[in-house]
Amino acid sequence: MRNDATGEAPPTRATLSEVASLAKVSVATVSKVLNGRTGVSDETRRRIESLLDERNYNRRLTAQSSAPLIDVLCYEIDSPFGGAAIVGIERVAREQGIGMVVTSTEESHLPGSKWVDGVLRRQPLGIILVAALLPEKDKARLRSRAIPIVMIDPYGAQATDAPSIGSADWNGGFLATRHLIELGHERIAIVTGPSSMMASTARLSGYRAALDGAGIPVRPEYIRPGNFHREDGVSEGRELLTSAEPPTAIFASSDLQALGVYEAARTLGLHVPDDLSVVGYDDLAIAQWAGPPMTTVRVPLGEMAEQATHLVTRLRDEPELAFSRVEMATSLVVRESTASPRA
Amino acid sequence: MRNDATGEAPPTRATLSEVASLAKVSVATVSKVLNGRTGVSDETRRRIESLLDERNYNRRLTAQSSAPLIDVLCYEIDSPFGGAAIVGIERVAREQGIGMVVTSTEESHLPGSKWVDGVLRRQPLGIILVAALLPEKDKARLRSRAIPIVMIDPYGAQATDAPSIGSADWNGGFLATRHLIELGHERIAIVTGPSSMMASTARLSGYRAALDGAGIPVRPEYIRPGNFHREDGVSEGRELLTSAEPPTAIFASSDLQALGVYEAARTLGLHVPDDLSVVGYDDLAIAQWAGPPMTTVRVPLGEMAEQATHLVTRLRDEPELAFSRVEMATSLVVRESTASPRA
Repeated sequence: MRNDATGEAPPTRATLSEVASLAKVSVATVSKVLNGRTGVSDETRRRIESLLDERNYNRRLTAQSSAPLIDVLCYEIDSPFGGAAIVGIERVAREQGIGMVVTSTEESHLPGSKWVDGVLRRQPLGIILVAALLPEKDKARLRSRAIPIVMIDPYGAQATDAPSIGSADWNGGFLATRHLIELGHERIAIVTGPSSMMASTARLSGYRAALDGAGIPVRPEYIRPGNFHREDGVSEGRELLTSAEPPTAIFASSDLQALGVYEAARTLGLHVPDDLSVVGYDDLAIAQWAGPPMTTVRVPLGEMAEQATHLVTRLRDEPELAFSRVEMATSLVVRESTASPRA
Repeated sequence: MRNDATGEAPPTRATLSEVASLAKVSVATVSKVLNGRTGVSDETRRRIESLLDERNYNRRLTAQSSAPLIDVLCYEIDSPFGGAAIVGIERVAREQGIGMVVTSTEESHLPGSKWVDGVLRRQPLGIILVAALLPEKDKARLRSRAIPIVMIDPYGAQATDAPSIGSADWNGGFLATRHLIELGHERIAIVTGPSSMMASTARLSGYRAALDGAGIPVRPEYIRPGNFHREDGVSEGRELLTSAEPPTAIFASSDLQALGVYEAARTLGLHVPDDLSVVGYDDLAIAQWAGPPMTTVRVPLGEMAEQATHLVTRLRDEPELAFSRVEMATSLVVRESTASPRA
């Protein structure tokens, strides 16, 4: 049962009144702000928001017990990666009798301006961000309602204000590159992910380390910028393969990007893996479905999503978990897109 | 705000008491059943359920106005088709400020046994079934709370008890087959979808009609059973291509199945489209990503999901829409997986 303006439970009422009196507004106005309702001026809303945050107002949320929800904010839900994360979260939520509300980011990795209002009205147990980013003002509003946040593959620099679940990206980049070196490749190129994501920077760093370890010079012209999209693989793959000294192997930073490299090879009449070895990253279903089935780095996305879901449901009772950063292991899955280079 | 055991609004209270008195239980017990709570014996629950249904008890749902939700029950959310339907629903729900709760089916096309309890607790505006099926007892419980249902690509025989959004499957099967005939193919095989789905039966029927129209005899050995999965395409494709008189073209009933046919061809050393033409069905992203990009029948899944979402939010106020059946147009998208057969 939800307690709104008129029916706050006793332990909370005092604090609510206190905030109202400090803000010089009615209790009903504070309640409107708390529940993300309209009818409050921007300036008043800001004043109340900052008081709520300052005073560490923790609203007792009772809605959860009757119809518990988790809110998922997902970057590119139409991508194979976003879809796979949602599938993993849904499985755990369903087992626990929790409803999973899914929203896509709007402007790049950010939610639409009304997203946080909806969350406040729904009062979920917690929030899972999948490669998504929240503005500080949204975070403050969630904090003031004690709605915990867990991140999967956080966007941007290492976040320290919420627990996160990632995977061993440096190691993944290292494993992929070392596999190609062991097959005898020396001309190994990489198409990277966005430089603003720690995950892609770490993969690139693993690539460099593997080359360094084998005494193979890193060639700047073999390091190509990308954004995890298939198009990057097509365009950068084509440029690499038509350059004066084309690589014999390309390591792509996502499976989708690797499919783009397949397409670049196909349209140039090159055969994978006889003419070109390709390694992907993520091990999504599309890697198995590719022709030939793709050698790739497995990110345990299902397990990451499970961990995130378990964590977000426990954070309210075990706030000490809020400082955790889980990094799950990556591994190499060898299929048919890699072979020794032609002599 | 939710009104539970103690706080029903006046117009509803009378009926609630009436049901309680007919069932010889307390109002609180009826309320527990209404809200999908525990603590009621199975027998009592059944008695109350059937009274609620009989008496056409329409609970006034007020939760929707504060935190409106739509519940989506989706078959195979981990499939490209399920994922694409969810993306379409999410877009409209987000624009309307409605939260989308997603649950996967468990036993084949059916929800888990606790799904409907969760729905009753959440009190969504309505339900969208994506290729999913509800047992009659679940439907009755939803009906008694006046929670409307809309179906996308209904599973099983044509449903008449809820509005549905489908697409022109017969026409799709016809277009795909006629395209192959026009390229000069006569040995055209089909891998079907499950015979229990109207959508697959209609596609097969379109295939037969196109062959009949061109005076090409239908060969029973060219009609292969499938389940929309990639594995069907691999195994049936391999059997067809290694038979005494292999087809020169294969029409698959889903894009995923067509990817399986690509794989069968690849492992047999056959080139698409020079040695074999392949047509898929759905026009999901994987069709564009395939090598070569796939000729396929476009199902306007995004538009279907939009229609379903608009419909489910209007049904409570416009119950006359409950008898609608929308069938959206399909079209052929010609890419690079089809060509004339070798002379």
